[in-house]
Amino acid sequence: MFENKDESRTPISDLGEFGLIDHLTKHVEIKRSSTIKGIGDDAAVINSEEERVMVVSTDLLVEGVHFDLSYMPLKHLGYKAVMVNLSDIYAMNAEATQITVSLAVSNRFPVEALEELYSGILTATKLYNVDLVGGDTTSSTSGLVISITAIGQVASDEVVYRSGAGENDLLVVTGDLGAAYLGLQVLEREKQVFQANPNAQPELDNYTYLVERQLKPEARKDIPKLLRDLDVKPTSMIDISDGLSSEIIHLCKNSEVGCNLYEDKIPLDPQVISTCEEFDLDSTTIALNGGEDYELLFTIKTEDFPKIKANPNLTVIGHITGKKDGMHLITRADTKIPLIARGWNAMEKE
Amino acid sequence: MFENKDESRTPISDLGEFGLIDHLTKHVEIKRSSTIKGIGDDAAVINSEEERVMVVSTDLLVEGVHFDLSYMPLKHLGYKAVMVNLSDIYAMNAEATQITVSLAVSNRFPVEALEELYSGILTATKLYNVDLVGGDTTSSTSGLVISITAIGQVASDEVVYRSGAGENDLLVVTGDLGAAYLGLQVLEREKQVFQANPNAQPELDNYTYLVERQLKPEARKDIPKLLRDLDVKPTSMIDISDGLSSEIIHLCKNSEVGCNLYEDKIPLDPQVISTCEEFDLDSTTIALNGGEDYELLFTIKTEDFPKIKANPNLTVIGHITGKKDGMHLITRADTKIPLIARGWNAMEKE
Repeated sequence: MFENKDESRTPISDLGEFGLIDHLTKHVEIKRSSTIKGIGDDAAVINSEEERVMVVSTDLLVEGVHFDLSYMPLKHLGYKAVMVNLSDIYAMNAEATQITVSLAVSNRFPVEALEELYSGILTATKLYNVDLVGGDTTSSTSGLVISITAIGQVASDEVVYRSGAGENDLLVVTGDLGAAYLGLQVLEREKQVFQANPNAQPELDNYTYLVERQLKPEARKDIPKLLRDLDVKPTSMIDISDGLSSEIIHLCKNSEVGCNLYEDKIPLDPQVISTCEEFDLDSTTIALNGGEDYELLFTIKTEDFPKIKANPNLTVIGHITGKKDGMHLITRADTKIPLIARGWNAMEKE
Repeated sequence: MFENKDESRTPISDLGEFGLIDHLTKHVEIKRSSTIKGIGDDAAVINSEEERVMVVSTDLLVEGVHFDLSYMPLKHLGYKAVMVNLSDIYAMNAEATQITVSLAVSNRFPVEALEELYSGILTATKLYNVDLVGGDTTSSTSGLVISITAIGQVASDEVVYRSGAGENDLLVVTGDLGAAYLGLQVLEREKQVFQANPNAQPELDNYTYLVERQLKPEARKDIPKLLRDLDVKPTSMIDISDGLSSEIIHLCKNSEVGCNLYEDKIPLDPQVISTCEEFDLDSTTIALNGGEDYELLFTIKTEDFPKIKANPNLTVIGHITGKKDGMHLITRADTKIPLIARGWNAMEKE
């Protein structure tokens, strides 16, 4: 980490645009029966099964805005870029099936760097059973830009929107929150140590979970299947990319409801708690505004509670109220404060 | 043109990311019955009719690489960015139905500039009857990046690939070639005149068609329908974005065939011919390598020739041969020279 390990550097111009695409995609395998045609034509061709609808989501990641290559290895970046997009597909209660990947790269990147990036992308496609079916590679006048479009399928009566939450529904979150944001803080600190003394070795032993959540997040592929197995159809769902607070507000606004979120119910990993103490940060603030968790937030009918309550992946953190009641956090001290969306970008500027 | 007409400049930060997306997309209307859910959730939801497959294509346009804002008005850029993508959908013989648009923008662009860009995008969606169903807007550390994904549908037995051309098939092209590239040359020249003397008025009267082909290209939405009406299913098809020569080579390689292309059959607009004379350029070279024409190149069985021969949109420019015969241009002087793909990027560097 923090070192330039590049030993061989082949300029992109040695391959040319078409040569580069061929080179990077030569190991791509098609595994999904719904992929009729992948890379190599004007467009990919995808079959949708009867009674199923397609879901499509797209995200753009920009160097210097969404990632810093000084501590984000390119392989991890490729993997994470896929996760960011698949997370949106799972948030529709759908199965992710295909992705396209477009890159704009400046010629400061050698072919070997793009091979690393692609190796992360292809690892993600294998583990998540999605086909890479297309994309575009072009030059950039400055940094690296990654644009991914993810495609999924779901039975038309099983799509879950942000807009279906109803009064008294329970607010449920998967996994735990805040770790990815803290991982970024740890990496930023180590980067500064490294810049001051390039011989310093990063000390990350106490932060392994946090750093992994930042550098190698996993999208919740398991949740749509788990919910189906539990015979629970959420009334609404959204993925947590910008922070719990912001996503709860999106969900409530789209559903025209209010909510009460209980501070003491927010799931935190022990490393989040200990690192917040060390960094003198409030763990609730981090969980509410941290971002990049890629967990899912959803609502269920109260009668479905018995089906989920024993599951360690799922935590009930609150309940839905009427729109006029507003959106509130109920603190450990039992005070009621309005939820505000600050988002992790805003937080960083403070 | 070449002037900064911005009078009001609202910084993007006044709206914030979510506010900006809401602002830019507030006029988006959904018209397609296949669009179940557009902008406003984690993903768009699209229904595919029975017996139809989906086609998906994506392209990335980067400022300074694909466009120069000093002569490309933002409204035209938005329109053209959509055309570039729809062209790929039509090249599959499909109907374009939805697009997603992602933007990375530096804060040198005021909100009004993005409104211009979106107005071009929305004009294109209206004229081509496609729904804008999603996207992402983010900041950029430098220029403007536009990533568009286009989605289409076509009956599963009507998809046309690059790979179906057979020996003796006829090679057909739509419209005429080379004008967009010459339009770029004209605009580059006027830009230099303007830089030398900012009071000079651009002289574009003799180049209206060329400039329009460069600044406001139209994708061939009409061709899949025309071919269906003529009861012709092409054996192979590709869109002409990088120049005729390069696309013929793609098509022949994918189909494992050779071809003879006849120089005297290549369709040229009179303005292309006169401007080539003025600029001392060879019109065949321009047509072969010019790029950005967004016409369609396809092959048909010889028995279908009577069905297309009267159509002014379609020109037979050659025929398919065996793979071992190679890919050749037959010149007006009846000499046979191998086709090479230089592409317009390569040509510009000469």
